[in-house]
Amino acid sequence: MKSATVEAAFSRDAFHRGRFWLIQPLHSGHRAGMDAMMLAAAVPSSFSGRLADFGAGAGAAGLAVAARCSAAEVVLVENAPQMLECAQKTLAEAGNAHLAKRACVLDADISATGNARKAAGLADNSFDYVVMNPPFNQPDDRATPDSLKRSAHVAHDGLLESWLRSAAAVVRPRGGISIIVRPQALPELLSALRGRFGGAQILPIHPRADRPAIRIIVRAIRGSRAALNLCPPLILHDNGSDRFSERADAINNGLATLFGD
Amino acid sequence: MKSATVEAAFSRDAFHRGRFWLIQPLHSGHRAGMDAMMLAAAVPSSFSGRLADFGAGAGAAGLAVAARCSAAEVVLVENAPQMLECAQKTLAEAGNAHLAKRACVLDADISATGNARKAAGLADNSFDYVVMNPPFNQPDDRATPDSLKRSAHVAHDGLLESWLRSAAAVVRPRGGISIIVRPQALPELLSALRGRFGGAQILPIHPRADRPAIRIIVRAIRGSRAALNLCPPLILHDNGSDRFSERADAINNGLATLFGD
Repeated sequence: MKSATVEAAFSRDAFHRGRFWLIQPLHSGHRAGMDAMMLAAAVPSSFSGRLADFGAGAGAAGLAVAARCSAAEVVLVENAPQMLECAQKTLAEAGNAHLAKRACVLDADISATGNARKAAGLADNSFDYVVMNPPFNQPDDRATPDSLKRSAHVAHDGLLESWLRSAAAVVRPRGGISIIVRPQALPELLSALRGRFGGAQILPIHPRADRPAIRIIVRAIRGSRAALNLCPPLILHDNGSDRFSERADAINNGLATLFGD
Repeated sequence: MKSATVEAAFSRDAFHRGRFWLIQPLHSGHRAGMDAMMLAAAVPSSFSGRLADFGAGAGAAGLAVAARCSAAEVVLVENAPQMLECAQKTLAEAGNAHLAKRACVLDADISATGNARKAAGLADNSFDYVVMNPPFNQPDDRATPDSLKRSAHVAHDGLLESWLRSAAAVVRPRGGISIIVRPQALPELLSALRGRFGGAQILPIHPRADRPAIRIIVRAIRGSRAALNLCPPLILHDNGSDRFSERADAINNGLATLFGD
């Protein structure tokens, strides 16, 4: 992506080789990148309908879906004030005019339950798909040497359980979900999917062919009872190279999908 | 492996290129193969101590560990009469004389609990390692078109929970476990590991680079709180070939390990 400073606090970044742009905080908050592009690449190209991007940030994953799936209507769900402002600026950006009519921002707390969730605009069975890139520990936390504390945090903070509960409420039966998490979250994620989403496809993402996975993408179907599948991994870099592999680059630019559909 | 009929009901099969032999039922029961060899290959070559092979059958995984790890003492735990007979014949087989002094058979129900488990010879903290290849649905069941029933069976039969509970009891703190299961068992397996074994390393096994995994090997440490890792997969066949890949062949023959240790 290319960056250009539009004012002191924001940058304007091209994604999908300039097919859409994000207005992002320049020095703080979550800046979108490969994770959001891979998450969006898990949605089938044939998808049509209403899609929620939970924790949308500036709108990276949602807009990447809208850019590739011409029949998708995306709702960017966010409630951090700075990121909401970015998402609004993103939709107002001239370079996104071709997508803006199929995208909107919803200020809502994804962890809300029952009537509070409905009142926030997240009605039951009102979406065909949810994508989510749940926040995890910040880089500062990752630097801590206390691996016990870190894994405990991942396992017990209940965020995935809370977000999956909301996703199961708002997605219609047989609707879909795509999630990107660190591999360490797999036990909590599978536990949170149980009884809600089935037919899970797990796709590991490795930095190189001989290194452990750094992310997993999981795709699943609301109400399905089908068994899960563990898919061939995506390798980000060919051995001996620091550039993205051809496949990773195509996915990053909206030219290929993760599951080939 | 090569087979030779020793009497009507049994065959004598070479493993690890003839470094050990199994006496197996010729026409019924579980016949060992690649699964048992891959399971054994998950044990570090430096392992020394007492290792239990849960559901050992004729002893394939246990003997494969003994053949590679010269300081391992293996206990083949089984309670199906026909397989117990095979395991005994296997240890009495002349071609296994170099291993027999480090191997024995234990007739015990792995699902037993409390005093019944101890009375059966499975005392608490009495092993340094457990390997297990838990039985799953027979090929006849796999042919059923009712995928719901199948996944429900896998999810609810409780066998993994029961075997992991026993493994956690008999393995000493910081001792190890290696398990081979179908990917569909991953949710139940991760749930059964929780609070018992940590630092899990999950290694998917794919028939070919572009096909979903058909097995996963999971290795973990008793009492560890470390986060899990998702390792690079093992690919059994190179594309365009029906023969094992070089790496799969080396693992099948005890010449390489799954985790490189």
